[in-house]
Amino acid sequence: MAAALGLAARGLGRVWPNPAVGCVIERDGIVLGRGRTANGGRPHAETLALAQAGTAARGATAYVTLEPCAHHGLTPPCADALVAAGLARVVIARRDPDPRVDGGGIALLRAAGVDVVEGVLADRATELQAGFISRVTRGRPLVTLKLATTLDGRIATASGESQWITGPAARTHVHAMRAIHDAILVGAGTARADDPSLTVRGMGDVPQPVRITISRHLNLPLDSNLTRGGGGPVWMLHAEGTSQAACDAMSARGVALVPCPTGPGGQVDLAEALQILGQRGLTRLYCEGGGTLAAALLSAALVDRLDCYTAGAAIGAEGTPSLGAMGLAALAEAPRLRLVDIRTLGPDILHRWAAD
Amino acid sequence: MAAALGLAARGLGRVWPNPAVGCVIERDGIVLGRGRTANGGRPHAETLALAQAGTAARGATAYVTLEPCAHHGLTPPCADALVAAGLARVVIARRDPDPRVDGGGIALLRAAGVDVVEGVLADRATELQAGFISRVTRGRPLVTLKLATTLDGRIATASGESQWITGPAARTHVHAMRAIHDAILVGAGTARADDPSLTVRGMGDVPQPVRITISRHLNLPLDSNLTRGGGGPVWMLHAEGTSQAACDAMSARGVALVPCPTGPGGQVDLAEALQILGQRGLTRLYCEGGGTLAAALLSAALVDRLDCYTAGAAIGAEGTPSLGAMGLAALAEAPRLRLVDIRTLGPDILHRWAAD
Repeated sequence: MAAALGLAARGLGRVWPNPAVGCVIERDGIVLGRGRTANGGRPHAETLALAQAGTAARGATAYVTLEPCAHHGLTPPCADALVAAGLARVVIARRDPDPRVDGGGIALLRAAGVDVVEGVLADRATELQAGFISRVTRGRPLVTLKLATTLDGRIATASGESQWITGPAARTHVHAMRAIHDAILVGAGTARADDPSLTVRGMGDVPQPVRITISRHLNLPLDSNLTRGGGGPVWMLHAEGTSQAACDAMSARGVALVPCPTGPGGQVDLAEALQILGQRGLTRLYCEGGGTLAAALLSAALVDRLDCYTAGAAIGAEGTPSLGAMGLAALAEAPRLRLVDIRTLGPDILHRWAAD
Repeated sequence: MAAALGLAARGLGRVWPNPAVGCVIERDGIVLGRGRTANGGRPHAETLALAQAGTAARGATAYVTLEPCAHHGLTPPCADALVAAGLARVVIARRDPDPRVDGGGIALLRAAGVDVVEGVLADRATELQAGFISRVTRGRPLVTLKLATTLDGRIATASGESQWITGPAARTHVHAMRAIHDAILVGAGTARADDPSLTVRGMGDVPQPVRITISRHLNLPLDSNLTRGGGGPVWMLHAEGTSQAACDAMSARGVALVPCPTGPGGQVDLAEALQILGQRGLTRLYCEGGGTLAAALLSAALVDRLDCYTAGAAIGAEGTPSLGAMGLAALAEAPRLRLVDIRTLGPDILHRWAAD
């Protein structure tokens, strides 16, 4: 199962809207087939592993990181395929919360006489599939917020200088994080100020995540690193009712427009926007700021994971804060997160927190 | 030597203006005597260990964490005492940089025929004695700055609420840190806003560090936790030329006044103030803010160690920043520190940085 989870992890950021699943088929200690959900979400892990194993799969054991599907989607049900291949035993890390599956795959296998074991390394599988689970159970992608700050929580000097607060190891780690997310999100202020390309660089020839900004009136530069091509698709979230001229100009640049409902202040409603992104299939969203968007996501309890890169530097109170205004009336209202991991990255540290 | 260093560490914060030294006398694997510099700085570690060992010290080995003194101060030279006791061998972690010693103790021992070994666990000894070394070589105490912040570098909400950002484990750790420092320093703003007592609490019956504030005009409340007694001595650094009335009022409260030169802006010159504290014998100073003083110390390159306690909470941009204005023109001017240690403390993390 650990091997299957390792395979599955390679699919993170590449298989949405599907879950990143791994499958290993084994008999008497000999691996007969291995597979993970292919880039784009198909073929499924089981299909690939079964194809490798061929007729040797008869009587063997399959280890699958998520309950095999039981429904006819764009591919036939994997549970049927495992039965047809004659597997004697299927070991499953955890159930698939998708209402079209949710125990149905297990029931189908058992009805066919296959020995099914559930819950092996279930916690690791749940963590690995947190994005898919979030989309299925909450309708929105898992949101990871990245902050890269000085010791005093600043992300730039008063003059806007931010390159580089953290060192090369932290920056490389951020690119690796981009690579395992379906999409990268930044606010309009960051898009304007930094003109980021939001591509995965230095990781070889890997699929590029979707690049998303939020701009209420779509008043972003038409000529920018986001509109010049060379990376993943660009989606721009904007308020419903944005002028047709602004929409047409962005569409002409190859940008996919995503109109979203607005909240009382006229801003894009972030909870609604994330639901729309979930409907579009995103399971793992990586937000890189800026401070206004980060604070709004935290205030709305829409941040699931917070990755803080901290450099051993100090900028002082004139610097740009990592989080914008949050409007707290009392300390008891401050969002609290649970420490998950802590490590060094060259001269910097990375501390990771979770909202659950 | 490790045992001697362990003994020495128990003297931190209690033996100024002297170094915290440990001494173990041993023969054939049997410990004959142990000692550390006593609270207040006397008797010295060697004196206590020799008294324990008595005549058994003849022909034995002494492990000392700092070169034994060779000069007549308030106590006779320890090097003479070791010779007189008939020690065959003296193992020394590192030399004493005090110009009155600086190899003189070693020379005295060798001249008397004692076998001397130098440099055993020297790095650990140098770290342990960093405060004493700083006072001797730079004229000022070692300065450790403490910051206890949210993930976005805030130390209080907009309304001033700061209790509690970090959890009990971090707060206990801060009391342990106070206990191993000669003095605690806070700025006038913190003294006014928080009315801190700056005592060591929850650590049993331990010596209380000196409590120091900086207030240019001595315009601090006459009735405060600092002036009400119950902790260590209170020193107030103020500008030379402060009104006699203000000085008399504070003196009447038992406060020791420390007039200091001022800089171009009329503020107490921090570098000069630290020199004065060094002249008064302080070797280890623990600064607990606030943001204005912390930023001024960092800007003046007067911070040697930076201890950051970070809680998994977010307050947002209205909160009080951990560091005040630093007036940086460019990111390259930002003070940079080297990571020394990183650990969890209950729900919080502690990351420790050094300026060297």
